[in-house]
Amino acid sequence: MRGSDQQAYDRGTSLFSPDGRIYQVEYAREAVSRGAPSVGVRTENAVVLAAQAQASSKLMESESIEKIHKLDDHVGAASAGHVADARQLIDFARRMAQGNHLRYGEAVGVETLTKYVTDHIQENTQRGGTRPYGAALLIGGIEGGIESEDGEDGRPRLFSADPSGTPHEWKATIIGGGREEIQEVLEEGWHDELSLEEGLNLVLSSLREHDEEIEAHALSVSAITAEDGYEHYEPEEIASLLEALEDEAAGEEEE
Amino acid sequence: MRGSDQQAYDRGTSLFSPDGRIYQVEYAREAVSRGAPSVGVRTENAVVLAAQAQASSKLMESESIEKIHKLDDHVGAASAGHVADARQLIDFARRMAQGNHLRYGEAVGVETLTKYVTDHIQENTQRGGTRPYGAALLIGGIEGGIESEDGEDGRPRLFSADPSGTPHEWKATIIGGGREEIQEVLEEGWHDELSLEEGLNLVLSSLREHDEEIEAHALSVSAITAEDGYEHYEPEEIASLLEALEDEAAGEEEE
Amino acid sequence: MRGSDQQAYDRGTSLFSPDGRIYQVEYAREAVSRGAPSVGVRTENAVVLAAQAQASSKLMESESIEKIHKLDDHVGAASAGHVADARQLIDFARRMAQGNHLRYGEAVGVETLTKYVTDHIQENTQRGGTRPYGAALLIGGIEGGIESEDGEDGRPRLFSADPSGTPHEWKATIIGGGREEIQEVLEEGWHDELSLEEGLNLVLSSLREHDEEIEAHALSVSAITAEDGYEHYEPEEIASLLEALEDEAAGEEEE
Amino acid sequence: MRGSDQQAYDRGTSLFSPDGRIYQVEYAREAVSRGAPSVGVRTENAVVLAAQAQASSKLMESESIEKIHKLDDHVGAASAGHVADARQLIDFARRMAQGNHLRYGEAVGVETLTKYVTDHIQENTQRGGTRPYGAALLIGGIEGGIESEDGEDGRPRLFSADPSGTPHEWKATIIGGGREEIQEVLEEGWHDELSLEEGLNLVLSSLREHDEEIEAHALSVSAITAEDGYEHYEPEEIASLLEALEDEAAGEEEE
Amino acid sequence: MRGSDQQAYDRGTSLFSPDGRIYQVEYAREAVSRGAPSVGVRTENAVVLAAQAQASSKLMESESIEKIHKLDDHVGAASAGHVADARQLIDFARRMAQGNHLRYGEAVGVETLTKYVTDHIQENTQRGGTRPYGAALLIGGIEGGIESEDGEDGRPRLFSADPSGTPHEWKATIIGGGREEIQEVLEEGWHDELSLEEGLNLVLSSLREHDEEIEAHALSVSAITAEDGYEHYEPEEIASLLEALEDEAAGEEEE
Amino acid sequence: MRGSDQQAYDRGTSLFSPDGRIYQVEYAREAVSRGAPSVGVRTENAVVLAAQAQASSKLMESESIEKIHKLDDHVGAASAGHVADARQLIDFARRMAQGNHLRYGEAVGVETLTKYVTDHIQENTQRGGTRPYGAALLIGGIEGGIESEDGEDGRPRLFSADPSGTPHEWKATIIGGGREEIQEVLEEGWHDELSLEEGLNLVLSSLREHDEEIEAHALSVSAITAEDGYEHYEPEEIASLLEALEDEAAGEEEE
Amino acid sequence: MRGSDQQAYDRGTSLFSPDGRIYQVEYAREAVSRGAPSVGVRTENAVVLAAQAQASSKLMESESIEKIHKLDDHVGAASAGHVADARQLIDFARRMAQGNHLRYGEAVGVETLTKYVTDHIQENTQRGGTRPYGAALLIGGIEGGIESEDGEDGRPRLFSADPSGTPHEWKATIIGGGREEIQEVLEEGWHDELSLEEGLNLVLSSLREHDEEIEAHALSVSAITAEDGYEHYEPEEIASLLEALEDEAAGEEEE
Repeated sequence: MRGSDQQAYDRGTSLFSPDGRIYQVEYAREAVSRGAPSVGVRTENAVVLAAQAQASSKLMESESIEKIHKLDDHVGAASAGHVADARQLIDFARRMAQGNHLRYGEAVGVETLTKYVTDHIQENTQRGGTRPYGAALLIGGIEGGIESEDGEDGRPRLFSADPSGTPHEWKATIIGGGREEIQEVLEEGWHDELSLEEGLNLVLSSLREHDEEIEAHALSVSAITAEDGYEHYEPEEIASLLEALEDEAAGEEEE
Repeated sequence: MRGSDQQAYDRGTSLFSPDGRIYQVEYAREAVSRGAPSVGVRTENAVVLAAQAQASSKLMESESIEKIHKLDDHVGAASAGHVADARQLIDFARRMAQGNHLRYGEAVGVETLTKYVTDHIQENTQRGGTRPYGAALLIGGIEGGIESEDGEDGRPRLFSADPSGTPHEWKATIIGGGREEIQEVLEEGWHDELSLEEGLNLVLSSLREHDEEIEAHALSVSAITAEDGYEHYEPEEIASLLEALEDEAAGEEEE
Repeated sequence: MRGSDQQAYDRGTSLFSPDGRIYQVEYAREAVSRGAPSVGVRTENAVVLAAQAQASSKLMESESIEKIHKLDDHVGAASAGHVADARQLIDFARRMAQGNHLRYGEAVGVETLTKYVTDHIQENTQRGGTRPYGAALLIGGIEGGIESEDGEDGRPRLFSADPSGTPHEWKATIIGGGREEIQEVLEEGWHDELSLEEGLNLVLSSLREHDEEIEAHALSVSAITAEDGYEHYEPEEIASLLEALEDEAAGEEEE
Repeated sequence: MRGSDQQAYDRGTSLFSPDGRIYQVEYAREAVSRGAPSVGVRTENAVVLAAQAQASSKLMESESIEKIHKLDDHVGAASAGHVADARQLIDFARRMAQGNHLRYGEAVGVETLTKYVTDHIQENTQRGGTRPYGAALLIGGIEGGIESEDGEDGRPRLFSADPSGTPHEWKATIIGGGREEIQEVLEEGWHDELSLEEGLNLVLSSLREHDEEIEAHALSVSAITAEDGYEHYEPEEIASLLEALEDEAAGEEEE
Repeated sequence: MRGSDQQAYDRGTSLFSPDGRIYQVEYAREAVSRGAPSVGVRTENAVVLAAQAQASSKLMESESIEKIHKLDDHVGAASAGHVADARQLIDFARRMAQGNHLRYGEAVGVETLTKYVTDHIQENTQRGGTRPYGAALLIGGIEGGIESEDGEDGRPRLFSADPSGTPHEWKATIIGGGREEIQEVLEEGWHDELSLEEGLNLVLSSLREHDEEIEAHALSVSAITAEDGYEHYEPEEIASLLEALEDEAAGEEEE
Repeated sequence: MRGSDQQAYDRGTSLFSPDGRIYQVEYAREAVSRGAPSVGVRTENAVVLAAQAQASSKLMESESIEKIHKLDDHVGAASAGHVADARQLIDFARRMAQGNHLRYGEAVGVETLTKYVTDHIQENTQRGGTRPYGAALLIGGIEGGIESEDGEDGRPRLFSADPSGTPHEWKATIIGGGREEIQEVLEEGWHDELSLEEGLNLVLSSLREHDEEIEAHALSVSAITAEDGYEHYEPEEIASLLEALEDEAAGEEEE
Repeated sequence: MRGSDQQAYDRGTSLFSPDGRIYQVEYAREAVSRGAPSVGVRTENAVVLAAQAQASSKLMESESIEKIHKLDDHVGAASAGHVADARQLIDFARRMAQGNHLRYGEAVGVETLTKYVTDHIQENTQRGGTRPYGAALLIGGIEGGIESEDGEDGRPRLFSADPSGTPHEWKATIIGGGREEIQEVLEEGWHDELSLEEGLNLVLSSLREHDEEIEAHALSVSAITAEDGYEHYEPEEIASLLEALEDEAAGEEEE
């Protein structure tokens, strides 16, 4: 479909193009893939989330460009794309998680929470008078909450939510820019008995594949485990992890 | 009707073209036929649903691209087309099925449930300010629920719902891509005394006609029977069914 | 009015063209006349409704393309045009018929019911934000219900409702494709002392005029009588009626 | 104002053209003048309403193309233009007439009723999101109702309501096609001591001026008198009136 | 501003043009100035209102094209422009006048009433989804009602309300066509000790300046005085006033 | 930005142009600066407001083109621009002032009142479906009301409100046409110990700078003082003030 | 993306361009960067806010062009861009701060307050029928309020809110025009042990970098400290600070 024809169908969320596409959703996806990457890896007992975000000035507090957020004690999210849109989705997810405590007296399921969010996203792709969200999320956590251990519960899970409102579950994945190369690193490195430390290393090395110069202060990393719930890593912890990675890489090259 | 003329009438769901067509609905149908196929077959005592869905990465959990869903103990659905749109319809159908239990204290009829869904779809093709759903459903189950056995009840039924909101009942059919060839296989193979196993084989061989390389992990299959209600097949079960099919095909070729 | 000028006025239901036409309504009529025909004939004591509908596959259950519906014990309807739109009108009519029982404790009048439907259709031709219904109905039944016998009551009546929302009462008529030839057969064959059997024959021979190859399984036929109310004919009954017609025609040719 | 300029201002009811015209209202008037004529004549003690309407098939019940309607015991209306639009106005007028009985316990005034209708019509010419009504009405009756005889009451009155929502009172007038010639016959033949019979003759001869071939079955005629209220004429009565007219005309020619 | 540029800004009431104009309001004013004139003159103790309106047929009741209306015992209005729009404004003013009696137990002030009306008109020039009123009013009456005599009260006042919603108070003025010549006659003839009779003569001679052939039946005249409130003149009274004027004019010419 | 480009962004209040301008607001400002000027001067103990308005006919009552209005005992306003829009703002301000008495039992602050008005104006520049107000106001009065004398209270204050909804406080300023020359006169003549009489002279001489022929009847002048509150000047008072000014000017010239 | 293409996507807040941008938000940012600068600096124990605003006339009260506002005892804000839009945001923030006192009986957090504001801004970038806010804010204050001293509380914090609704936390930053050069001065001069006086000097010298001629009366400056809360500087204080800066600069040059 050529330019002038395409323009005929991309002016509203309530229009299909003749080939069955919804252009406004595809443009929102473009907004996501032009942003910095966020990566999630599920390990045997945890979910690791990491996001890259470069402050535009050294006077900017790096926490304020934070793209990883705690949603509840047992679940967190990483975002990519338009920051203000992502914040709305994060707020929406938090309200849903709180509402679950109030209504049912228990921690919301990771899958359930993801679907609340994707339903909300989808509605903005079908009704007129609004635009789709220009953001994607990774939602990771412990199914059933951190205090539960029966059946399905206690198991780490990782989901993505894209601007069309489609949820997917992953062993490991990336949203935002550099998708192809980062996903490749994840596919090569992932196995189902990853320890938490291995998961952290996999996340960081995948991001380094995309940006070799990556520095600790431009990274934020969290892990969610059944034992300790949502925990955020300090910049120093990230720095030493990066250093170890570099040593290892140097060692490998030497060999 | 040529290009520039057609464009005059395809910008909204609340417009007819001079030849009485609603283009937005036809474009939504196009969205469905560009997706992977989902097939349904009614056997003497069951309905079999199967869908093809290829994960974009080996790290994606294949259940999360699941296109077959349990709606109630006695009824399931397979979808084709825009995933996020299909999920909204699945959710709508589940709420309707639950509501029936609450209001009438009994399992919703398969036909009744299909018509709730198609009414909802049709409304989105007539009012402005929204677009049609870019998804189609197969809804299959046991009329009257799995515990009932009088009259009409206990009988397996299979319906389709398309983006215009038209319901049809089928002995066997396909939604999504590859319609022509798959429907042909179904027409050749279907008879009204199919056993469940024969139904499973018919579904799988029709999908293999469309994609010879089809693999078990890219398939999901469910059956709904009056005895056991909705049951989902494990990947290994699907794999052995596929294998048996191939052996048979090889055997036939040999002959 | 030439093409490009016409286009200026056919984009919304809330616009007249300079010559006082409402194009969206005319396009909806076009949608009706491109569909298969439905025929209604009023006999001395009954109304006969018949519709043609060809299943797109032998695996489609022909009842599910049914275009004749019971609205109440004493009244039925046949539709033509967009199937999903017609179903909405049928549902609307059923709710109105039920509401009449609840509110007034008696069966709704055939004329009254028709006017509820046409008022509803007209509203969709005047307000913005919606499109007209792309369907027409024949509504036939026993005025006053099947248990009543005083005055006007007990008398068979047949109405049509078109996409503009105009009701008309008929002795016999056709909606959908093939209007001219079918109406001609009806005009030739109708007289006011038709027996039910003669009515059935008139309906079927008018449809055969339009499509000589017509077969029983592609036809559905109902009759509404003061004695028995709404009754649907089995495919075998239709087949033997068609056969008798053919014999007769053959006989006439021989003569 | 030439074509392309005019088009700039005729796309909505909420727009004036630079010369202060509301084109959508003028197009609605065009819809009226392309329809068949309806005529009203006020006699000394009655109002006579007559409308021409040719059934499109001899199988159509001519009452169902009726364009003359009883609104209340003492008042009736004749319509011209889009039939479905006219029916909405007739229904609106009936509800207003009934409401008057409920609220004030008395028959609605003919002028009052006309103004309820024209106010309703005007609103559809000023707000966006709707189109004007494509119909005009003649409303005739006995001021104050048929049982009242004091003061103003008991006096026959005749009003017109056009698509702009302007009411006018008339001694005799015509809405719909053939306006010029019919109004001329009325102006020549009307005087203020017309008997009911003379009124009927004037109405019929004015319509015959427009269509010499006019036949009784394509005509409907009603009269509203203070004695008997609203009365509809049977086809036979109309036929004999027409015959008498023809004899008279023949007699005049002979002379 | 040339044609095509002007068109860019005249399609809605909610748009200013670059030179700060609201074209839809100006077009509504054009609708007023293309209508017949209505004139108001304030005399020492009264307000005189007169309007010209030619019936389109001698069978039209001239009262029904009445453009002068009683709003309350002590206040009346004359209109110019679109008749149906003017009627809405007259109705609105009457409801406001009645509401004042109900709420405050006293006659509404002439200025207050005018401002209710102009506020209502202005709102239709600012919000989208509607068009301005295509009508202007003259509102004249006795401030404080006809029974009051203290202070400001008892004093005759005359206001105009134009399509922008601007109120002005006048000694004498004209709305509708022929503004320039009629206003000139009023300016020459008005002085602040006019008797009622002199006021009537001034009104009639100003209208005669615009249309020399003016006849009594095409005129309607009312006067509002503190003694008698709103009074309408009979056609005969107007005829003899016109005659006297003509005699006078003839006398002057002779001299 | 050239013509055709500018047009792309000036059609709605809810659009920014690429250079961050809101054209509809700028066009509304243009509407203000094409009107006659209104001037306000704050003296040591008072605020003086003056406005020029030429009646279009000597029969128009000059008070009715009044552009200076009392809002409360201690505060008044002068307007410029579209008269009907200005009246809405004046009414809005009066309701706000009254509401303050009702809710808080005290006179509204001049600054508070101005901000109520500018908030209201701003809302009409951001939401769609409406246009900005085509009027500006000067709001002047005694902070805290005329009976209060503690702290801030009792102090005269003068504010302007423009079509963007921006409030400014002034020692002296002008809204409407002739802004540049009038503001210059005000800047030259203002000092912070102006007496009321000097303030009146400054206002009048600034207006004379803009229009040398200015006459008392085309002017309206009010002053608000802590002692007497809002007081309007009679035409004779204005005339003698103008005369004195002219004598003085003549005297100066002579010197 | 070239001009005419860009125009296709910048007409509404509810549209993405093909490269995932929301042009209306970018144009609103342009509105901000064309305004005068506002600067904020966080010192060890305080936040300093300063804004430049030149009065258009010496008769304008400079406080009325104030761009720094107290939001609560412990928090203030500086704005840049469209003044009327900024005032709406300031009002919104004040209501949120007051609401926090009412609902929770404690001072709102600086971060919480910022996020209330940015959520509100974001909503105006996603829904149709409105435009984004053409203003940015700096929000600075003492976390936890000025009376609190435990944990996080008592710590100064500074946030920015831009027209997309994105919040960022800063050590020091600038909104409005001259961003690049001012941010550079801030980056050079900031360290984490700044005293209040050093903070004031840094703010003023950064603004002087942008406009060498800057004068005290065109500046407004506030500081928020845990001891004294929000305090506004008098013009004389600012003047002497500027003077000191100039002396220092002169001293440095001499050296």
